[in-house]
Amino acid sequence: MAETLQIIGVDGIGDVQPGDDLVAIISRALRDSQITLVTGDIVVVTHKIVSKAEGRLVDLRTIEPSPFARQWSERYGKDARQTEVVLREATRIVRMDRGVIIAETRHGFVCANAGVDASNVAGADTVCLLPIDPDASAHRLAVGLEQACGVVVPVIITDSFGRPWRDGVVNIAIGIAGMTPLVDYRGQHDPYGYLMSASVLAVADELAAAAELVMNKVDQRPVAVVRGYAYAAGPGSGKNLVMRPERDMFR
Amino acid sequence: MAETLQIIGVDGIGDVQPGDDLVAIISRALRDSQITLVTGDIVVVTHKIVSKAEGRLVDLRTIEPSPFARQWSERYGKDARQTEVVLREATRIVRMDRGVIIAETRHGFVCANAGVDASNVAGADTVCLLPIDPDASAHRLAVGLEQACGVVVPVIITDSFGRPWRDGVVNIAIGIAGMTPLVDYRGQHDPYGYLMSASVLAVADELAAAAELVMNKVDQRPVAVVRGYAYAAGPGSGKNLVMRPERDMFR
Repeated sequence: MAETLQIIGVDGIGDVQPGDDLVAIISRALRDSQITLVTGDIVVVTHKIVSKAEGRLVDLRTIEPSPFARQWSERYGKDARQTEVVLREATRIVRMDRGVIIAETRHGFVCANAGVDASNVAGADTVCLLPIDPDASAHRLAVGLEQACGVVVPVIITDSFGRPWRDGVVNIAIGIAGMTPLVDYRGQHDPYGYLMSASVLAVADELAAAAELVMNKVDQRPVAVVRGYAYAAGPGSGKNLVMRPERDMFR
Repeated sequence: MAETLQIIGVDGIGDVQPGDDLVAIISRALRDSQITLVTGDIVVVTHKIVSKAEGRLVDLRTIEPSPFARQWSERYGKDARQTEVVLREATRIVRMDRGVIIAETRHGFVCANAGVDASNVAGADTVCLLPIDPDASAHRLAVGLEQACGVVVPVIITDSFGRPWRDGVVNIAIGIAGMTPLVDYRGQHDPYGYLMSASVLAVADELAAAAELVMNKVDQRPVAVVRGYAYAAGPGSGKNLVMRPERDMFR
Protein backbone atom coordinates (compact mmCIF):
# COMPACT_ATOMS: atom_id res chain seq x y z
CA MET A 1 0.00 0.00 0.00
CA ALA A 2 1.17 3.53 -0.72
CA GLU A 3 2.61 5.61 2.08
CA THR A 4 -0.31 7.58 3.46
CA LEU A 5 -0.37 10.36 5.95
CA GLN A 6 -3.52 11.49 7.72
CA ILE A 7 -4.29 14.98 8.96
CA ILE A 8 -7.11 14.78 11.49
CA GLY A 9 -8.94 17.89 12.67
CA VAL A 10 -9.88 17.87 16.36
CA ASP A 11 -13.33 19.32 17.05
CA GLY A 12 -14.76 20.58 20.30
CA ILE A 13 -11.89 22.63 21.70
CA GLY A 14 -14.26 25.54 22.31
CA ASP A 15 -13.32 28.87 23.79
CA VAL A 16 -10.07 28.98 25.76
CA GLN A 17 -9.64 31.37 28.70
CA PRO A 18 -6.56 32.52 30.60
CA GLY A 19 -5.61 29.88 33.14
CA ASP A 20 -7.37 27.04 31.32
CA ASP A 21 -5.73 23.62 31.40
CA LEU A 22 -4.97 23.06 27.73
CA VAL A 23 -3.90 19.45 28.23
CA ALA A 24 -7.28 18.66 29.81
CA ILE A 25 -9.12 20.54 27.04
CA ILE A 26 -7.23 18.83 24.21
CA SER A 27 -7.39 15.34 25.70
CA ARG A 28 -11.14 15.70 26.33
CA ALA A 29 -11.67 16.96 22.77
CA LEU A 30 -9.67 14.00 21.42
CA ARG A 31 -11.80 11.60 23.48
CA ASP A 32 -15.06 13.27 22.39
CA SER A 33 -13.91 13.08 18.76
CA GLN A 34 -13.04 9.40 19.26
CA ILE A 35 -9.43 10.03 18.32
CA THR A 36 -7.01 7.80 20.23
CA LEU A 37 -3.45 9.05 19.98
CA VAL A 38 -1.04 6.37 18.83
CA THR A 39 2.73 6.22 18.67
CA GLY A 40 3.89 8.17 15.65
CA ASP A 41 1.18 10.84 15.91
CA ILE A 42 2.15 14.49 16.03
CA VAL A 43 -0.14 17.02 17.73
CA VAL A 44 -0.29 20.43 16.07
CA VAL A 45 -1.76 23.35 18.01
CA THR A 46 -2.27 26.93 16.85
CA HIS A 47 -0.55 29.35 19.17
CA LYS A 48 -3.74 31.35 19.69
CA ILE A 49 -5.20 28.93 22.23
CA VAL A 50 -1.79 28.49 23.86
CA SER A 51 -1.40 32.26 24.22
CA LYS A 52 -4.93 32.56 25.59
CA ALA A 53 -4.45 29.79 28.15
CA GLU A 54 -1.17 31.40 29.18
CA GLY A 55 -2.86 34.76 29.57
CA ARG A 56 -0.89 36.42 26.76
CA LEU A 57 -3.71 38.88 26.13
CA VAL A 58 -3.44 42.64 26.38
CA ASP A 59 -6.34 44.96 27.19
CA LEU A 60 -5.64 47.91 24.91
CA ARG A 61 -7.45 50.24 27.34
CA THR A 62 -4.44 49.85 29.65
CA ILE A 63 -1.93 50.91 26.98
CA GLU A 64 -0.54 54.43 26.68
CA PRO A 65 0.87 54.81 23.17
CA SER A 66 4.21 56.57 22.73
CA PRO A 67 4.39 59.65 20.49
CA PHE A 68 6.08 57.47 17.84
CA ALA A 69 3.25 54.92 17.92
CA ARG A 70 0.66 57.72 17.75
CA GLN A 71 2.30 59.46 14.82
CA TRP A 72 2.64 56.29 12.78
CA SER A 73 -0.87 55.09 13.56
CA GLU A 74 -2.50 58.41 12.69
CA ARG A 75 -0.75 58.41 9.36
CA TYR A 76 -2.13 54.97 8.42
CA GLY A 77 -5.44 54.90 10.31
CA LYS A 78 -4.25 52.28 12.80
CA ASP A 79 -5.06 51.84 16.49
CA ALA A 80 -2.13 53.56 18.25
CA ARG A 81 -2.53 51.35 21.31
CA GLN A 82 -2.12 48.24 19.17
CA THR A 83 0.91 49.77 17.41
CA GLU A 84 2.37 50.44 20.85
CA VAL A 85 1.95 46.78 21.80
CA VAL A 86 3.60 45.73 18.53
CA LEU A 87 6.59 47.97 19.23
CA ARG A 88 6.89 46.58 22.75
CA GLU A 89 6.86 43.00 21.40
CA ALA A 90 9.49 43.84 18.78
CA THR A 91 13.23 43.64 19.32
CA ARG A 92 14.01 45.03 15.86
CA ILE A 93 12.01 46.56 13.00
CA VAL A 94 12.78 44.93 9.65
CA ARG A 95 10.36 47.03 7.59
CA MET A 96 7.96 49.77 8.61
CA ASP A 97 6.15 51.22 5.65
CA ARG A 98 2.67 51.62 4.09
CA GLY A 99 0.99 50.85 7.40
CA VAL A 100 2.77 47.50 7.73
CA ILE A 101 5.27 46.63 10.45
CA ILE A 102 7.51 43.61 9.89
CA ALA A 103 9.44 43.04 13.08
CA GLU A 104 11.69 40.57 14.80
CA THR A 105 10.28 39.13 18.00
CA ARG A 106 12.18 38.19 21.14
CA HIS A 107 12.18 34.61 19.82
CA GLY A 108 13.92 35.69 16.62
CA PHE A 109 10.88 35.24 14.38
CA VAL A 110 10.38 37.89 11.71
CA CYS A 111 6.68 38.50 11.06
CA ALA A 112 3.95 41.08 10.66
CA ASN A 113 3.18 43.07 13.81
CA ALA A 114 5.66 41.05 15.89
CA GLY A 115 2.98 38.39 16.18
CA VAL A 116 0.40 40.70 17.81
CA ASP A 117 -3.04 39.74 16.52
CA ALA A 118 -6.60 40.95 17.11
CA SER A 119 -8.45 38.11 15.34
CA ASN A 120 -10.13 35.21 17.14
CA VAL A 121 -9.95 37.04 20.46
CA ALA A 122 -12.94 37.95 22.64
CA GLY A 123 -13.30 41.67 23.29
CA ALA A 124 -12.85 44.51 20.81
CA ASP A 125 -10.06 46.02 22.93
CA THR A 126 -8.05 42.83 23.35
CA VAL A 127 -5.06 41.65 21.35
CA CYS A 128 -3.18 38.38 21.59
CA LEU A 129 0.62 38.03 21.81
CA LEU A 130 2.82 35.08 20.93
CA PRO A 131 3.62 32.74 23.83
CA ILE A 132 6.66 33.88 25.83
CA ASP A 133 8.49 30.63 25.06
CA PRO A 134 6.65 28.51 22.46
CA ASP A 135 9.12 25.62 22.86
CA ALA A 136 8.42 25.48 26.59
CA SER A 137 4.68 25.60 25.84
CA ALA A 138 5.06 22.73 23.37
CA HIS A 139 7.11 20.78 25.89
CA ARG A 140 4.49 21.23 28.62
CA LEU A 141 1.76 20.07 26.24
CA ALA A 142 3.81 17.04 25.17
CA VAL A 143 4.48 16.04 28.78
CA GLY A 144 0.84 16.57 29.72
CA LEU A 145 -0.52 14.66 26.74
CA GLU A 146 1.84 11.77 27.47
CA GLN A 147 0.44 11.62 31.01
CA ALA A 148 -3.17 12.02 29.88
CA CYS A 149 -3.08 9.75 26.82
CA GLY A 150 -0.22 7.37 27.59
CA VAL A 151 1.61 8.06 24.34
CA VAL A 152 4.74 10.07 23.60
CA VAL A 153 3.76 12.63 20.94
CA PRO A 154 5.75 15.51 19.52
CA VAL A 155 3.91 18.84 19.71
CA ILE A 156 4.17 21.67 17.18
CA ILE A 157 2.81 25.12 18.00
CA THR A 158 1.99 27.19 14.94
CA ASP A 159 1.21 30.66 13.70
CA SER A 160 0.29 31.90 10.23
CA PHE A 161 3.02 34.07 8.74
CA GLY A 162 3.19 36.09 5.55
CA ARG A 163 6.18 35.68 3.24
CA PRO A 164 8.17 38.14 1.13
CA TRP A 165 7.34 37.89 -2.58
CA ARG A 166 4.38 35.57 -2.07
CA ASP A 167 0.76 36.37 -1.39
CA GLY A 168 -1.24 34.88 1.43
CA VAL A 169 -0.17 33.52 4.78
CA VAL A 170 0.83 29.95 5.57
CA ASN A 171 0.98 28.12 8.86
CA ILE A 172 4.50 27.64 10.23
CA ALA A 173 6.04 26.13 13.37
CA ILE A 174 7.02 28.51 16.19
CA GLY A 175 7.33 26.02 19.04
CA ILE A 176 8.42 22.38 18.93
CA ALA A 177 8.84 19.52 21.37
CA GLY A 178 9.95 15.97 20.72
CA MET A 179 11.03 16.05 17.09
CA THR A 180 13.68 17.43 14.77
CA PRO A 181 12.20 20.29 12.73
CA LEU A 182 14.74 20.11 9.90
CA VAL A 183 15.59 17.06 7.82
CA ASP A 184 19.03 17.36 6.35
CA TYR A 185 19.73 15.58 3.09
CA ARG A 186 23.10 17.27 2.67
CA GLY A 187 25.88 14.80 2.09
CA GLN A 188 23.44 12.16 0.85
CA HIS A 189 23.39 11.23 -2.81
CA ASP A 190 20.22 11.45 -4.83
CA PRO A 191 19.25 8.44 -7.00
CA TYR A 192 21.49 9.82 -9.76
CA GLY A 193 24.56 10.03 -7.54
CA TYR A 194 24.42 13.81 -7.22
CA LEU A 195 25.62 14.98 -3.83
CA MET A 196 22.81 17.12 -2.44
CA SER A 197 24.27 20.33 -1.10
CA ALA A 198 21.28 22.54 -0.35
CA SER A 199 18.56 20.18 0.69
CA VAL A 200 17.55 20.87 4.25
CA LEU A 201 13.80 20.50 4.48
CA ALA A 202 11.84 22.46 7.07
CA VAL A 203 9.49 19.58 7.77
CA ALA A 204 8.03 21.16 10.93
CA ASP A 205 6.85 24.07 8.80
CA GLU A 206 5.42 21.62 6.26
CA LEU A 207 3.62 19.76 9.07
CA ALA A 208 2.24 23.07 10.35
CA ALA A 209 1.04 23.94 6.85
CA ALA A 210 -0.53 20.51 6.41
CA ALA A 211 -2.37 20.84 9.73
CA GLU A 212 -3.81 24.22 8.74
CA LEU A 213 -5.68 22.52 5.89
CA VAL A 214 -8.08 20.94 8.42
CA MET A 215 -8.12 23.88 10.81
CA ASN A 216 -9.85 26.59 8.78
CA LYS A 217 -9.15 29.95 10.28
CA VAL A 218 -12.73 30.93 11.11
CA ASP A 219 -13.88 27.50 12.21
CA GLN A 220 -12.36 27.36 15.67
CA ARG A 221 -10.54 24.11 15.10
CA PRO A 222 -7.14 24.94 16.56
CA VAL A 223 -5.79 21.40 16.99
CA ALA A 224 -4.92 18.70 14.47
CA VAL A 225 -3.25 15.31 14.65
CA VAL A 226 -0.81 14.26 11.94
CA ARG A 227 -0.70 10.48 11.68
CA GLY A 228 1.77 8.41 9.70
CA TYR A 229 4.66 10.83 9.30
CA ALA A 230 8.01 9.24 10.13
CA TYR A 231 9.42 12.13 12.13
CA ALA A 232 12.87 12.08 13.69
CA ALA A 233 12.35 11.95 17.45
CA GLY A 234 14.65 14.06 19.56
CA PRO A 235 15.05 17.50 20.97
CA GLY A 236 13.85 20.23 18.66
CA SER A 237 13.13 23.92 18.88
CA GLY A 238 11.21 26.48 16.89
CA LYS A 239 14.46 28.44 16.97
CA ASN A 240 16.11 25.78 14.79
CA LEU A 241 13.94 27.17 11.98
CA VAL A 242 15.20 30.73 12.42
CA MET A 243 18.00 31.59 10.03
CA ARG A 244 21.20 32.67 11.68
CA PRO A 245 21.88 36.39 11.15
CA GLU A 246 25.18 35.73 9.39
CA ARG A 247 23.41 33.66 6.73
CA ASP A 248 20.42 36.01 6.41
CA MET A 249 20.47 38.11 3.23
CA PHE A 250 17.25 39.92 4.13
CA ARG A 251 17.97 41.39 7.55
CA MET B 1 -16.17 11.67 12.63
CA ALA B 2 -13.44 14.29 12.61
CA GLU B 3 -12.51 15.97 9.34
CA THR B 4 -9.61 13.96 7.97
CA LEU B 5 -7.38 14.65 5.07
CA GLN B 6 -5.17 12.02 3.47
CA ILE B 7 -1.86 12.58 1.74
CA ILE B 8 -1.06 9.55 -0.40
CA GLY B 9 2.38 9.03 -1.90
CA VAL B 10 2.40 7.56 -5.39
CA ASP B 11 5.13 4.99 -5.96
CA GLY B 12 6.53 3.68 -9.21
CA ILE B 13 6.94 6.86 -11.24
CA GLY B 14 10.51 5.88 -12.09
CA ASP B 15 12.90 7.87 -14.19
CA VAL B 16 11.35 10.47 -16.50
CA GLN B 17 12.97 11.35 -19.83
CA PRO B 18 12.43 14.26 -22.22
CA GLY B 19 9.39 13.55 -24.35
CA ASP B 20 7.82 11.09 -21.90
CA ASP B 21 4.05 11.10 -21.56
CA LEU B 22 3.60 12.16 -17.97
CA VAL B 23 -0.14 11.50 -17.94
CA ALA B 24 0.47 7.90 -18.98
CA ILE B 25 3.26 7.53 -16.41
CA ILE B 26 1.21 8.97 -13.54
CA SER B 27 -1.98 7.11 -14.38
CA ARG B 28 -0.06 3.82 -14.65
CA ALA B 29 1.67 4.49 -11.31
CA LEU B 30 -1.69 5.24 -9.72
CA ARG B 31 -3.11 1.98 -11.10
CA ASP B 32 -0.07 -0.03 -9.97
CA SER B 33 -0.34 1.54 -6.50
CA GLN B 34 -4.06 0.67 -6.45
CA ILE B 35 -5.00 4.32 -6.02
CA THR B 36 -8.25 5.21 -7.76
CA LEU B 37 -8.69 8.94 -8.13
CA VAL B 38 -12.02 10.15 -6.79
CA THR B 39 -13.81 13.47 -7.02
CA GLY B 40 -12.25 15.85 -4.50
CA ASP B 41 -8.72 14.53 -4.94
CA ILE B 42 -5.90 16.90 -5.78
CA VAL B 43 -2.83 15.64 -7.64
CA VAL B 44 0.45 17.23 -6.57
CA VAL B 45 3.49 16.82 -8.83
CA THR B 46 7.03 18.08 -8.25
CA HIS B 47 8.18 20.23 -11.13
CA LYS B 48 11.30 18.14 -11.63
CA ILE B 49 9.52 15.38 -13.55
CA VAL B 50 7.46 17.96 -15.44
CA SER B 51 10.59 19.82 -16.47
CA LYS B 52 12.28 16.58 -17.50
CA ALA B 53 9.31 15.41 -19.56
CA GLU B 54 9.18 18.83 -21.21
CA GLY B 55 12.89 18.67 -21.99
CA ARG B 56 13.79 21.61 -19.74
CA LEU B 57 17.29 20.24 -19.25
CA VAL B 58 20.51 22.01 -20.16
CA ASP B 59 23.75 20.28 -21.04
CA LEU B 60 26.33 22.53 -19.39
CA ARG B 61 28.93 21.48 -21.97
CA THR B 62 27.02 23.60 -24.48
CA ILE B 63 27.13 26.74 -22.31
CA GLU B 64 29.68 29.51 -22.77
CA PRO B 65 29.78 31.54 -19.54
CA SER B 66 29.92 35.32 -19.78
CA PRO B 67 32.83 37.16 -18.13
CA PHE B 68 30.44 38.21 -15.34
CA ALA B 69 29.39 34.60 -14.68
CA ARG B 70 33.05 33.50 -14.71
CA GLN B 71 34.19 36.22 -12.32
CA TRP B 72 31.42 35.52 -9.80
CA SER B 73 31.83 31.74 -9.99
CA GLU B 74 35.60 31.85 -9.55
CA ARG B 75 35.18 33.96 -6.44
CA TYR B 76 32.85 31.44 -4.81
CA GLY B 77 34.02 28.14 -6.29
CA LYS B 78 30.90 27.68 -8.41
CA ASP B 79 30.48 26.15 -11.86
CA ALA B 80 30.53 29.17 -14.18
CA ARG B 81 28.41 27.36 -16.77
CA GLN B 82 25.69 26.79 -14.18
CA THR B 83 25.90 30.43 -13.06
CA GLU B 84 25.49 31.43 -16.68
CA VAL B 85 22.30 29.34 -16.96
CA VAL B 86 21.00 30.94 -13.75
CA LEU B 87 21.61 34.42 -15.14
CA ARG B 88 19.84 33.50 -18.39
CA GLU B 89 16.82 32.19 -16.45
CA ALA B 90 16.66 35.34 -14.30
CA THR B 91 14.78 38.49 -15.19
CA ARG B 92 16.05 40.35 -12.12
CA ILE B 93 18.60 39.72 -9.37
CA VAL B 94 17.16 40.30 -5.90
CA ARG B 95 20.34 39.40 -3.98
CA MET B 96 23.73 38.23 -5.18
CA ASP B 97 26.13 37.72 -2.35
CA ARG B 98 28.20 35.07 -0.54
CA GLY B 99 27.87 32.65 -3.44
CA VAL B 100 24.08 32.79 -3.38
CA ILE B 101 21.92 34.19 -6.18
CA ILE B 102 18.31 35.01 -5.34
CA ALA B 103 16.58 35.94 -8.57
CA GLU B 104 13.21 36.61 -10.08
CA THR B 105 12.21 34.18 -12.82
CA ARG B 106 10.20 34.94 -15.94
CA HIS B 107 7.15 33.67 -14.02
CA GLY B 108 7.69 36.23 -11.26
CA PHE B 109 8.87 33.71 -8.66
CA VAL B 110 11.74 34.84 -6.45
CA CYS B 111 13.97 31.93 -5.53
CA ALA B 112 17.53 30.65 -5.28
CA ASN B 113 19.31 30.24 -8.62
CA ALA B 114 16.20 31.25 -10.58
CA GLY B 115 14.98 27.68 -10.12
CA VAL B 116 18.00 26.08 -11.83
CA ASP B 117 18.81 22.84 -10.06
CA ALA B 118 21.39 20.09 -10.44
CA SER B 119 19.87 17.55 -8.04
CA ASN B 120 17.84 14.53 -9.11
CA VAL B 121 19.02 14.88 -12.68
CA ALA B 122 20.92 12.24 -14.66
CA GLY B 123 24.33 13.35 -15.88
CA ALA B 124 26.92 15.39 -14.01
CA ASP B 125 26.80 18.13 -16.64
CA THR B 126 23.03 18.51 -16.72
CA VAL B 127 20.88 21.02 -14.87
CA CYS B 128 17.12 21.28 -14.76
CA LEU B 129 15.11 24.47 -15.33
CA LEU B 130 11.60 25.33 -14.19
CA PRO B 131 8.85 24.56 -16.71
CA ILE B 132 8.30 27.40 -19.19
CA ASP B 133 4.68 27.80 -18.08
CA PRO B 134 3.88 25.71 -14.97
CA ASP B 135 0.17 26.62 -15.12
CA ALA B 136 -0.04 25.31 -18.67
CA SER B 137 1.81 22.16 -17.58
CA ALA B 138 -0.65 21.71 -14.70
CA HIS B 139 -3.58 22.26 -17.06
CA ARG B 140 -2.29 19.67 -19.52
CA LEU B 141 -1.86 17.14 -16.71
CA ALA B 142 -5.36 17.87 -15.36
CA VAL B 143 -6.94 17.43 -18.79
CA GLY B 144 -4.95 14.26 -19.41
CA LEU B 145 -5.73 12.75 -16.02
CA GLU B 146 -9.42 13.49 -16.50
CA GLN B 147 -9.31 11.59 -19.78
CA ALA B 148 -7.25 8.74 -18.37
CA CYS B 149 -8.97 8.39 -14.99
CA GLY B 150 -12.45 9.79 -15.65
CA VAL B 151 -12.28 12.27 -12.75
CA VAL B 152 -11.80 16.02 -12.71
CA VAL B 153 -8.80 16.71 -10.46
CA PRO B 154 -6.96 19.93 -9.76
CA VAL B 155 -3.21 19.67 -10.32
CA ILE B 156 -0.52 21.53 -8.37
CA ILE B 157 3.06 21.63 -9.63
CA THR B 158 5.60 22.30 -6.89
CA ASP B 159 9.15 23.30 -6.18
CA SER B 160 11.03 23.59 -2.90
CA PHE B 161 11.92 27.20 -2.10
CA GLY B 162 13.98 28.74 0.67
CA ARG B 163 12.54 31.63 2.67
CA PRO B 164 14.07 34.79 4.11
CA TRP B 165 14.61 34.59 7.88
CA ARG B 166 13.82 30.88 8.07
CA ASP B 167 16.06 27.88 7.67
CA GLY B 168 15.31 24.98 5.38
CA VAL B 169 13.27 24.79 2.22
CA VAL B 170 9.56 24.04 1.94
CA ASN B 171 7.52 22.85 -0.99
CA ILE B 172 5.38 25.53 -2.62
CA ALA B 173 3.01 25.73 -5.60
CA ILE B 174 4.40 27.12 -8.87
CA GLY B 175 1.73 25.86 -11.28
CA ILE B 176 -1.96 25.31 -10.66
CA ALA B 177 -4.97 24.05 -12.62
CA GLY B 178 -8.55 23.65 -11.47
CA MET B 179 -8.56 25.28 -8.04
CA THR B 180 -8.26 28.62 -6.30
CA PRO B 181 -4.83 28.85 -4.63
CA LEU B 182 -5.80 31.52 -2.09
CA VAL B 183 -8.69 31.36 0.37
CA ASP B 184 -9.78 34.82 1.38
CA TYR B 185 -11.33 35.25 4.81
CA ARG B 186 -11.25 39.04 4.57
CA GLY B 187 -14.64 40.55 5.24
CA GLN B 188 -15.77 37.49 7.18
CA HIS B 189 -16.18 37.70 10.92
CA ASP B 190 -14.38 35.32 13.20
CA PRO B 191 -16.40 33.54 15.93
CA TYR B 192 -15.87 36.59 18.17
CA GLY B 193 -17.28 39.03 15.63
CA TYR B 194 -13.88 40.44 14.70
CA LEU B 195 -13.73 41.43 11.05
CA MET B 196 -10.74 39.60 9.63
CA SER B 197 -8.62 42.02 7.65
CA ALA B 198 -5.45 40.15 6.83
CA SER B 199 -6.44 36.55 6.51
CA VAL B 200 -5.78 35.34 3.02
CA LEU B 201 -4.48 31.80 3.25
CA ALA B 202 -2.13 30.42 0.58
CA VAL B 203 -3.74 26.99 0.63
CA ALA B 204 -2.03 25.82 -2.57
CA ASP B 205 1.32 26.37 -0.85
CA GLU B 206 0.04 24.49 2.20
CA LEU B 207 -1.12 21.62 -0.03
CA ALA B 208 2.30 21.57 -1.71
CA ALA B 209 3.99 21.47 1.71
CA ALA B 210 1.68 18.70 2.89
CA ALA B 211 2.43 16.64 -0.22
CA GLU B 212 6.17 16.95 0.32
CA LEU B 213 5.81 15.05 3.59
CA VAL B 214 5.18 11.83 1.65
CA MET B 215 7.56 12.62 -1.20
CA ASN B 216 10.97 12.56 0.50
CA LYS B 217 13.48 14.35 -1.61
CA VAL B 218 15.85 11.47 -2.20
CA ASP B 219 13.22 8.77 -2.58
CA GLN B 220 12.02 9.47 -6.10
CA ARG B 221 8.37 9.81 -5.16
CA PRO B 222 7.46 12.93 -7.10
CA VAL B 223 3.66 12.58 -7.06
CA ALA B 224 1.14 12.65 -4.23
CA VAL B 225 -2.64 12.67 -4.01
CA VAL B 226 -4.36 14.87 -1.44
CA ARG B 227 -7.75 13.41 -0.54
CA GLY B 228 -10.48 15.09 1.49
CA TYR B 229 -9.56 18.75 1.18
CA ALA B 230 -12.55 20.91 0.26
CA TYR B 231 -10.81 23.05 -2.35
CA ALA B 232 -12.55 25.83 -4.24
CA ALA B 233 -12.83 24.66 -7.84
CA GLY B 234 -12.22 27.24 -10.52
CA PRO B 235 -9.47 28.81 -12.54
CA GLY B 236 -6.25 29.28 -10.60
CA SER B 237 -2.68 30.15 -11.37
CA GLY B 238 0.65 29.87 -9.65
CA LYS B 239 0.97 33.57 -10.43
CA ASN B 240 -1.90 34.29 -8.00
CA LEU B 241 0.60 33.45 -5.25
CA VAL B 242 3.15 35.98 -6.44
CA MET B 243 2.94 39.25 -4.53
CA ARG B 244 2.30 42.27 -6.69
CA PRO B 245 5.38 44.53 -6.88
CA GLU B 246 3.50 47.51 -5.38
CA ARG B 247 2.74 45.50 -2.22
CA ASP B 248 6.18 43.90 -2.01
CA MET B 249 8.38 45.37 0.71
CA PHE B 250 11.32 43.10 -0.11
CA ARG B 251 11.93 43.79 -3.81
